[in-house]
Amino acid sequence: MNTDILSTAANQARGLAIDAVHACSSGHLGLPLGCAEIGAVLFGEALQFDPSAPKWVNRDRFVLSAGHGSMFLYSWLHLAGYDLPLDEVKAFRQLGSKTPGHPENFETVGVEATTGPLGQGVGNAVGYALSGKMAAATYNTADHTILDYHVVALAGDGCLQEGVAREAVAFAGHNKLDNLILIYDSNDVTLDAMADVTQSEDTAAQYESMGWDVQTVDGHDMVAFAKAFQAAKDNNNGKPKLIIAKTEIGRGISQVAGTAKAHGEGGANFADEAHAALGLPAGETFYVSQDVRDFFAKRAEERAAQFAEWEKTFDAWTEANEELACQFGDALAGAVPSDILEQIPEFGEDYNGATRAAGGDVIQAVAKAVPHFITGSADLYGSTKNYIKDGGDYSDGNPTGRNIWYGIREHAMGAIMNGIAYDGIWRTSGATFAVFADYLRPSIRIAALAKLPVVYIFTHDSVGVGEDGPTHQPVETCSGLRVIPNLDVIRPGDPEETAGAYAAAMLRTDGPTLLLLSRQNVKTQSQIPAKDRRVGAEKGGYIARKESAALETILIATGSELDLAMQAAEQLGAGTRVVSMPCMERFDRQSAEYRESVLPAACTKRVAVEAGVSGLWWKYVGTAGQVVGIDRFGISAPGNTVFSELGMTVDNIVETAKSLG
Amino acid sequence: MNTDILSTAANQARGLAIDAVHACSSGHLGLPLGCAEIGAVLFGEALQFDPSAPKWVNRDRFVLSAGHGSMFLYSWLHLAGYDLPLDEVKAFRQLGSKTPGHPENFETVGVEATTGPLGQGVGNAVGYALSGKMAAATYNTADHTILDYHVVALAGDGCLQEGVAREAVAFAGHNKLDNLILIYDSNDVTLDAMADVTQSEDTAAQYESMGWDVQTVDGHDMVAFAKAFQAAKDNNNGKPKLIIAKTEIGRGISQVAGTAKAHGEGGANFADEAHAALGLPAGETFYVSQDVRDFFAKRAEERAAQFAEWEKTFDAWTEANEELACQFGDALAGAVPSDILEQIPEFGEDYNGATRAAGGDVIQAVAKAVPHFITGSADLYGSTKNYIKDGGDYSDGNPTGRNIWYGIREHAMGAIMNGIAYDGIWRTSGATFAVFADYLRPSIRIAALAKLPVVYIFTHDSVGVGEDGPTHQPVETCSGLRVIPNLDVIRPGDPEETAGAYAAAMLRTDGPTLLLLSRQNVKTQSQIPAKDRRVGAEKGGYIARKESAALETILIATGSELDLAMQAAEQLGAGTRVVSMPCMERFDRQSAEYRESVLPAACTKRVAVEAGVSGLWWKYVGTAGQVVGIDRFGISAPGNTVFSELGMTVDNIVETAKSLG
Repeated sequence: MNTDILSTAANQARGLAIDAVHACSSGHLGLPLGCAEIGAVLFGEALQFDPSAPKWVNRDRFVLSAGHGSMFLYSWLHLAGYDLPLDEVKAFRQLGSKTPGHPENFETVGVEATTGPLGQGVGNAVGYALSGKMAAATYNTADHTILDYHVVALAGDGCLQEGVAREAVAFAGHNKLDNLILIYDSNDVTLDAMADVTQSEDTAAQYESMGWDVQTVDGHDMVAFAKAFQAAKDNNNGKPKLIIAKTEIGRGISQVAGTAKAHGEGGANFADEAHAALGLPAGETFYVSQDVRDFFAKRAEERAAQFAEWEKTFDAWTEANEELACQFGDALAGAVPSDILEQIPEFGEDYNGATRAAGGDVIQAVAKAVPHFITGSADLYGSTKNYIKDGGDYSDGNPTGRNIWYGIREHAMGAIMNGIAYDGIWRTSGATFAVFADYLRPSIRIAALAKLPVVYIFTHDSVGVGEDGPTHQPVETCSGLRVIPNLDVIRPGDPEETAGAYAAAMLRTDGPTLLLLSRQNVKTQSQIPAKDRRVGAEKGGYIARKESAALETILIATGSELDLAMQAAEQLGAGTRVVSMPCMERFDRQSAEYRESVLPAACTKRVAVEAGVSGLWWKYVGTAGQVVGIDRFGISAPGNTVFSELGMTVDNIVETAKSLG
Repeated sequence: MNTDILSTAANQARGLAIDAVHACSSGHLGLPLGCAEIGAVLFGEALQFDPSAPKWVNRDRFVLSAGHGSMFLYSWLHLAGYDLPLDEVKAFRQLGSKTPGHPENFETVGVEATTGPLGQGVGNAVGYALSGKMAAATYNTADHTILDYHVVALAGDGCLQEGVAREAVAFAGHNKLDNLILIYDSNDVTLDAMADVTQSEDTAAQYESMGWDVQTVDGHDMVAFAKAFQAAKDNNNGKPKLIIAKTEIGRGISQVAGTAKAHGEGGANFADEAHAALGLPAGETFYVSQDVRDFFAKRAEERAAQFAEWEKTFDAWTEANEELACQFGDALAGAVPSDILEQIPEFGEDYNGATRAAGGDVIQAVAKAVPHFITGSADLYGSTKNYIKDGGDYSDGNPTGRNIWYGIREHAMGAIMNGIAYDGIWRTSGATFAVFADYLRPSIRIAALAKLPVVYIFTHDSVGVGEDGPTHQPVETCSGLRVIPNLDVIRPGDPEETAGAYAAAMLRTDGPTLLLLSRQNVKTQSQIPAKDRRVGAEKGGYIARKESAALETILIATGSELDLAMQAAEQLGAGTRVVSMPCMERFDRQSAEYRESVLPAACTKRVAVEAGVSGLWWKYVGTAGQVVGIDRFGISAPGNTVFSELGMTVDNIVETAKSLG
């Protein structure tokens, strides 16, 4: 390792960070400066990647969990030769640049995860590591190792204090993810204050208690750090690795270094003095020396050669394992059969179950159709019914198992699923009770933002939960999720709609889909052709009951309330239409013509029916309409009782419809 | 300790749980049966309380974090003599009973917290402990100790795996809450499986690494448990106490005991055999023997005497500390001066700041007016601006500090604040960035359900955040919060509206209020009298600009968009009204007359303006109206640029209004 040139590079990376933050008067200098030597070792030496093949499937994945230190990532990606020109670094945090304030995987080549919300990146890295373990077990053969990448995350106190990280760390230790290396930028400072104002734990002992290996090093000592890192890479002992790197936050700007003031942009005011202290030429900004350029150019060549070498192995493996290679190709492409809906058997007319139970059948067909599809549950398989029956359980001893046991760690499940989705080898899904969507909402939000095709299977979707009471009865949950941009929320009304919902979720590539399934039995609407219900669910909304006279009234319903609306329509008579609308978002994406055909503007007598808060329905019923909803928390009592107590009855729908002018 | 009678009581408590679960065919038997001996020791012997004075301020607080084990609590509250008759136990989980599926503080005397969502109760207990530490430091004197209660929580693997508990545990250790005793019902089983499927950590080592004292005992050995409990109570060593109680889940029903099947209601099928094994009379249900009744009756007398003894101390203290006693009385009553709004100084016409900055001024006045008001921040005081300037920082060494440093632990902050609010001695508030509301949403939901008057101070409320980009820009957050029942979300548009919002929050007693404050400067609407803006914010919506000709168009706006609407109205002309609507929920609670006076039904040309998702606004603008909103994630760029890129401009509002029919 050439510590001289890496040292120079580290200081120039510091300079890039200072100049970028100075230019836009915002951003965070603490980590880019404090971790410059770590960056030099990782990107100059120790990480396996090829900047000219940034999606190399056997690259080491690097996740900057402390996403506010984005200039760390941009500096090193730029220096290492990724497609991130200096002009982009200069445009840090400006409109249209590839260098947004926090790293966004869909904006910038080489950014492996959208981070910033603290702790998420730790969970993402655990997901990547799990994905890698599963992939290695599935695709490596006795003759060829095509996958042995490591996953490296860099996190600060902020990330590690977060519950999501703490859950993910416990999960990683339990599942023996020894391909994971977590670097803890331990600088004794948080945003507001010295870290000892809010924490005093023995981190090493804590991680060891959870099955991790721990090393502590001086984060500015490149030789020591490189040695620890290599030891972490080499030690396949069934333990994830924590490297506690003691660093000085903001090193390079003496006026703020080592204090909370170094965390943000403040230090940039001392740019000139910092330049001098770092040995950067006076009067120049965004300076990179030729010898540093040359060094990284040479490294890029070596890395390209490494990649080429791997390609040979990969080609030999491909030749020797045609079917497996084909499967791997499909997996990497995220391929889902376009006729997946047809591969899901239809339910009989007499089927009489909850949509969670129907989902439990559907998922078997999905798992068969998509071999790279996996699932998981936060200790609720018995209730969420999403267990892949012949998939096996994932564990260290059975790393091809397709059922992940997340434990009672919903938030980590969310962040881990995002990591799996970023990795792109597995199509992932996970389950809990609908009301606990709140526990992983920060991760759902990022899945939507980062365009990850994660599938959430959330059951017990209404006050139909019954006796468990208001803590377990979602009333606002469904609407609370619908407002998240780029998230499809589908609440199917019967088993065939459930099949359509699953197909819609699986065929979606640019964002997550969330299925809300009932605890209680629902009526199978067998008077509607199965195909209509399936395709209707995919469209988001469709006519479930067409009026047989001039259209007078439209009832709109979702999920278990569909049948109430159908019954009410019978009473209201021939002029009543029922629209099933399991997914507002998908319906809103249909053509104006289609939407008008389902909800003709001329018909203003409209009643929406949903066992949840009413707010979002006014868009569809208008001020002339009404909503039969539940604008309060639920009640502990048998589900049917709760439904009638809260007005979710055929009679109430009929009365409400009749009351419209 | 009379272990004979306590043993009998334990088995009868088991019987009550079995019979209650059997009667309704739902519920959870695992914990009530596994922890029966623990319950006997706590409620028969070790806890300090008086069932005839259930709100005794110096009682020990008991929080059942594993809320699904609610029959544990109901059995022991009933046996101990709380106002929970046997008929209520028999009506377990039925409509209108005081024994809902999960414990609800507002339904049942003696229930200290609404639990069920796992991990929350651990955070609540930490909040209770913090409240107790602060209260003891504030109100005890050299001559009189009126407050020295302990806080006891009972939690299982599910609770302790959750991130919220892990954050809270770290907080408790750091803050040396040695008045907290956490009992870990360690039964090696979770809902889905044996616990070793999902966990393998060394819990004792883990807690010790975070500054806790740990004891491990046989949870069925009453003498051992009682000894450990007493030791935990007696040891004021600055360490919270963990008692790992090894138990057999579902003990008493041999067919399921010790397995995951014991967790839920399944065991109730073996009720008859269990009755026999437990020594309960055949053919009887809900059996309590006379000797057990007698025992608890005698204990109740002893406890009443204890309370009477304490009352003497309390009276002596009251006499000696008139002013302090008065303050304590106010605190316990949750008293807030009815004229608090008048105690908040008005901002000058020239004030030009963000609403978070205005909030930073307002909170000083609030803190002065309400001595029992405290605040906190998740490592963001510098940004959220809610620091009480002369309040001091809470720490072990300064337990009267009114500013809590929660660390980067938003979820624990939420759960801890709920605990503080349950305790009812402090009026609590806490802060983070608005977008991170998702991190504590599960706790916010429970605050709303449990009617806790917590105040959330969430800043950086829109894409006005700017350069930090979409991970940090709330677009759906505000609407996502509005759908939570019983939560007031107030997004004030200028400093005086901010004052009104704070007053509204402080004067609310039956639920939480969430303030959304801007990062960026907003215009002070000084052309409107300050009082109108203040009272308008309290009402939730008001006419900010009255039309000066026949009413043609109504613009509705919140927060930083109020000024855009005001400017647009100027361009649109004399027939345009602007309605400022900082809080939908409060507006909806106004009389129909008032609402009609603000939003006359006759005027259907309406445009709502908010830098966030549009969905909820259709209720107010109707199908004839329009919404100028942001139905996508944000952008990393300077705030002004983002506003205009996303159409949040005066021009766009004017054009939209003109486009209406």
